Amino acid sequence: MPNTIGRLLTLTSFGESHGAALGGVVDGYPAGIRIDKDFIASEMARRRPGSTSLGTKRSESDSVEILSGVYNGISTGMPIGFIIRNTSQRSSDYSSIEHCFRPGHADYTYTMKYGIRDPRGGGRSSGRETACRVFAGALSKLMLAEHGIRVDAGVTMLGGIEAADYEWDPPFPPPLYAPRCSALEAMMKAAEDAMRDGDSVGGIIECRAQGVPAGLGDPAFGKLDAALAAAIVSIGAVKGIEFGAGFRSASMRGSENNDGMRTENGRAVFLSNNAGGILGGISNGNDIVFRAAVKPTPSIAKEQMTITDGMEDTRISVHGRHDPTIAPRAVSVIEAMTALTIADAMLMKRAYER
Amino acid sequence: MPNTIGRLLTLTSFGESHGAALGGVVDGYPAGIRIDKDFIASEMARRRPGSTSLGTKRSESDSVEILSGVYNGISTGMPIGFIIRNTSQRSSDYSSIEHCFRPGHADYTYTMKYGIRDPRGGGRSSGRETACRVFAGALSKLMLAEHGIRVDAGVTMLGGIEAADYEWDPPFPPPLYAPRCSALEAMMKAAEDAMRDGDSVGGIIECRAQGVPAGLGDPAFGKLDAALAAAIVSIGAVKGIEFGAGFRSASMRGSENNDGMRTENGRAVFLSNNAGGILGGISNGNDIVFRAAVKPTPSIAKEQMTITDGMEDTRISVHGRHDPTIAPRAVSVIEAMTALTIADAMLMKRAYER
Amino acid sequence: MPNTIGRLLTLTSFGESHGAALGGVVDGYPAGIRIDKDFIASEMARRRPGSTSLGTKRSESDSVEILSGVYNGISTGMPIGFIIRNTSQRSSDYSSIEHCFRPGHADYTYTMKYGIRDPRGGGRSSGRETACRVFAGALSKLMLAEHGIRVDAGVTMLGGIEAADYEWDPPFPPPLYAPRCSALEAMMKAAEDAMRDGDSVGGIIECRAQGVPAGLGDPAFGKLDAALAAAIVSIGAVKGIEFGAGFRSASMRGSENNDGMRTENGRAVFLSNNAGGILGGISNGNDIVFRAAVKPTPSIAKEQMTITDGMEDTRISVHGRHDPTIAPRAVSVIEAMTALTIADAMLMKRAYER
Amino acid sequence: MPNTIGRLLTLTSFGESHGAALGGVVDGYPAGIRIDKDFIASEMARRRPGSTSLGTKRSESDSVEILSGVYNGISTGMPIGFIIRNTSQRSSDYSSIEHCFRPGHADYTYTMKYGIRDPRGGGRSSGRETACRVFAGALSKLMLAEHGIRVDAGVTMLGGIEAADYEWDPPFPPPLYAPRCSALEAMMKAAEDAMRDGDSVGGIIECRAQGVPAGLGDPAFGKLDAALAAAIVSIGAVKGIEFGAGFRSASMRGSENNDGMRTENGRAVFLSNNAGGILGGISNGNDIVFRAAVKPTPSIAKEQMTITDGMEDTRISVHGRHDPTIAPRAVSVIEAMTALTIADAMLMKRAYER
Repeated sequence: MPNTIGRLLTLTSFGESHGAALGGVVDGYPAGIRIDKDFIASEMARRRPGSTSLGTKRSESDSVEILSGVYNGISTGMPIGFIIRNTSQRSSDYSSIEHCFRPGHADYTYTMKYGIRDPRGGGRSSGRETACRVFAGALSKLMLAEHGIRVDAGVTMLGGIEAADYEWDPPFPPPLYAPRCSALEAMMKAAEDAMRDGDSVGGIIECRAQGVPAGLGDPAFGKLDAALAAAIVSIGAVKGIEFGAGFRSASMRGSENNDGMRTENGRAVFLSNNAGGILGGISNGNDIVFRAAVKPTPSIAKEQMTITDGMEDTRISVHGRHDPTIAPRAVSVIEAMTALTIADAMLMKRAYER
Repeated sequence: MPNTIGRLLTLTSFGESHGAALGGVVDGYPAGIRIDKDFIASEMARRRPGSTSLGTKRSESDSVEILSGVYNGISTGMPIGFIIRNTSQRSSDYSSIEHCFRPGHADYTYTMKYGIRDPRGGGRSSGRETACRVFAGALSKLMLAEHGIRVDAGVTMLGGIEAADYEWDPPFPPPLYAPRCSALEAMMKAAEDAMRDGDSVGGIIECRAQGVPAGLGDPAFGKLDAALAAAIVSIGAVKGIEFGAGFRSASMRGSENNDGMRTENGRAVFLSNNAGGILGGISNGNDIVFRAAVKPTPSIAKEQMTITDGMEDTRISVHGRHDPTIAPRAVSVIEAMTALTIADAMLMKRAYER
Repeated sequence: MPNTIGRLLTLTSFGESHGAALGGVVDGYPAGIRIDKDFIASEMARRRPGSTSLGTKRSESDSVEILSGVYNGISTGMPIGFIIRNTSQRSSDYSSIEHCFRPGHADYTYTMKYGIRDPRGGGRSSGRETACRVFAGALSKLMLAEHGIRVDAGVTMLGGIEAADYEWDPPFPPPLYAPRCSALEAMMKAAEDAMRDGDSVGGIIECRAQGVPAGLGDPAFGKLDAALAAAIVSIGAVKGIEFGAGFRSASMRGSENNDGMRTENGRAVFLSNNAGGILGGISNGNDIVFRAAVKPTPSIAKEQMTITDGMEDTRISVHGRHDPTIAPRAVSVIEAMTALTIADAMLMKRAYER
Repeated sequence: MPNTIGRLLTLTSFGESHGAALGGVVDGYPAGIRIDKDFIASEMARRRPGSTSLGTKRSESDSVEILSGVYNGISTGMPIGFIIRNTSQRSSDYSSIEHCFRPGHADYTYTMKYGIRDPRGGGRSSGRETACRVFAGALSKLMLAEHGIRVDAGVTMLGGIEAADYEWDPPFPPPLYAPRCSALEAMMKAAEDAMRDGDSVGGIIECRAQGVPAGLGDPAFGKLDAALAAAIVSIGAVKGIEFGAGFRSASMRGSENNDGMRTENGRAVFLSNNAGGILGGISNGNDIVFRAAVKPTPSIAKEQMTITDGMEDTRISVHGRHDPTIAPRAVSVIEAMTALTIADAMLMKRAYER
């Protein structure tokens, strides 16, 4: 089931960029949780087009209509159906590229796979699909909050400029959703320069889940980091993920990379967190920490070489409402997928407890 | 199902490091494929302890007994059951650490999760589990070979030393399973130095799948890169994965990162492969390329701080048969998981073709 | 995932009887199929309240809004999201029974399981949920029609009166959706008598799938009849299912029950169909035939003994818009679940073909 | 995954009648349960060929080797791998029918589906596969016993003779595994008469699960009765299943079929059990009761018409070691599938509890 993620807590989503609506079903959501609609709206707002001054000018309200599974403001344990109407469908924007494969997009691969594609704004492969993820993530966060777990992410590199000397004091403010630090201005400038050039920049997002108890995740193929990797890499623009010391650990020695342990007031503590909070696929009680690489927005005004669906060489300049960088808006999506994955792992853990 | 991976072609595995046997079931393997036992044995040999001069001295023969699903040397479409007997079970080696959590291992997390653990050699969380993956990968490669697809991996960084100026001419030779290049000696020395110090090193493995047709993978959560990420990160020692330009793409501009297209003899070609062969989660006909970070072997002779399961501080020095680096042996495992994932995606694609 | 059925072609549904809307997602529907909206509407109409003169007076239009997955009238291979608005929500009808467990309903079990329940019209456990099934079934029928497969069902027993001496010449007409036969009047009278008495009757529905090729279904737990059994018994009112000779075969001898074979114009034919078209869980090319037992409508005006959620004895008389028999309306639901299951099996078969 | 059943507690099985071994993996089995090997052996013995005087003369010891997941006699939460060696492989018995489709068997459908089949004793479609089910069922019973749940089944009709005036006082004795009653002799005679005639008889098995708490099962497609129907119909010889009043309820009025409720010592009690312990797909605290129809053994000495795989008409008389009835041996299999399904539902329930 390509459009479903999760095992016990699942999101099944549907919807194209310029169709009537996006939406989906969150199944396995426990009964008895208060559904805070303001919180959901605030989460949706962080992902919404136009949420950053860098963002696309497309202004979708992204208001979610919950259709089932909630009674008197409380979850009932039934599947939560929801839709998000597309209110700003300017298909004409896209008619010029209907027969052309935009570089960096899924236009070519969808055509090769399905023979048919909805060309309006990228159809299903559009980033607009992530609105459903943020909704499911908001529900997951409400569930996790009951257990003292919080999930935050921030942009720690943008356009080659790394955030430096920062503290982890989320939530991080728009427009960059980056930790407060001296590099913020340079990061902003990198994005604005790209925008001015009709180009775009990528970035790196760090995510931390705090308060996660030891014992989430499963052996072998059910490892928590494997599930997180799938969830995060399933976000269109993500090209890599690393946990804890990640790629850096490949250059470390074992004695340096292993996280030693000590007891403190009768509790186990780790002397470092190179593992990123996960050992053998199971959470160890430390913060879960990972970083994801977000590629530069593929839609750029700058002219690029491509081909038509009639197999003719051509050049393309993608105009319209595009972000010079997706990274700031991806912050909420990465938090959402992380929250969903951890909430799912919590249900799995409970199932097997005696 | 924690111990199962795949959708249409699945591996369900079982077994602990020092139990009677490892094994599993490969389900969904198509009927009519010739099962080349010599090929399977050669794949197993690459992963086997002692396959590199750097490796553990534990000598498991790792011979696979196929119990079903093959008749007269041909697959029948029925589930393929298999076992790999553990012939070298020196449990006494591990008795000294039964009540102690080895840093970098899953000892602590398994204990926290299950209340009980098989302490012999790491039990289920031991790397020995990957033998089953290599078997399933060998079957997958036999299936992919019928379609002209091959999967190869090689160590491209070891102990901080990068392979340089190499060509991709697999298969790569033991003991390092790295591309032939001028840095080989330095890579070897890095591992040997660590061994001499009672320590270990990590590395980076690059994997390429060649001959993959466009159209494998699915939208949203069924993306081919998401499936690969889960498959690769589910390997115990892997701490990160990146596709194509990966983390480097986060510092690139869109105009640089996008892979332009041209037609060549009536076929679509890409002018670069920063995408790593996957666009919008679906293969584009280019080589699929990714890199995985392998952490240094956690079992080291060097003394480390840890605690006992009675919550007392202690120090530990892990002796026994350990590799100073896991990376060379992980090459076959990464190939296996990649082959399994791609073969599964091929079956998925066929299902929906008219 | 409780609210999802199928493996490659799946329906995930949501919605309560008196919530804002029902709906769901059909995932895995192949690209390139013409979506005939008139056909879908006609299928919905057969299940709709008020479709039989025996039916509830509740008049839902049951019009389906397709939100995604269809472009220019053709399926795109993307998930098909849909909603069916509840237009006739007279919750006040149900207020009197909010704290009372209606006999034969899920009121008690939902309360025991979830601690909370949506009391309006049975909430999620209402038969209204089957509207989503009929929509998915209509899509499935469109897909099956391309392969010359049709699925029909009819009421062959109602209120103890068996349809006699009939031919299988579907589609069967309202209000009974039974094969044309001499017993029709008596069947109708049985239902009307029950209605007059404030009571209800059950019935038996026979279903046949014609044109199904040999080879659908899988070994062991993937048997086609097992999948059909799950699909049909998951319909709320169904209390039993039997294939081919079914329970009668338990009284037969092997020589009588086995379907002998002969060749006819070079093709294999069976001399009988006691197997109901399935051998070893795989279709044999014969018609697939089964019968399902539908219990009498539990909502009756007649007074019954029950208890309150405060654990007090009471009596209840369920008034409102109820059918004296569900069987005629269940015909379309049984066809839908059968079509969905067979279409799913077709995709599975294709996946493994070389 | 055709050869896997269950959601949180799963059995994945493999093996052909005359291959090297059958076996599989039980995944999701909770940690900390004492694995009583004597109990497992006694369960295996009830299904074993030769367990009844009516049975086949093939004498398999059916001893199970547990390969993982158990340490010091206690389950560890890891997957439990197991094999059952085939010790009595007289393939020569079957050579005469290698190119002939035995009526009532899967020979024809497997050939049509896979193009290839293992002809030795029916290969994968042989009833021998059920040995793995009984093993998984035995583990499930050990788990259920901790919660005061027991599952029993008995033959209540054989060869057309119904067990009469019996009490439900399991376990029921061999050779018939039927409740003690006055009809036992006539049931036995019906089977012996068929055996003498080179023929076979079918039967009906009733199964009851006692001590099941209210709240097991899920809405919509996750109904407990739907899961049981799939599990039971997946047993090769089963042609039908009915819950509670089952097909009889189709002839009842609602006022008669509904189970009224009363309180007794502050607890809810039902005044009857026509629902078979399940309402809206969720257990109601009553005994879960169903009946399954078992067809007569298809392998009979009596000559039958059939065709060859070269599409020629022929006649066949199946000799060898066959039971005149499968029903008594199916009793243990039906119990096993029921126990597995209920244990799985218990884990699901726990997952969602707060």
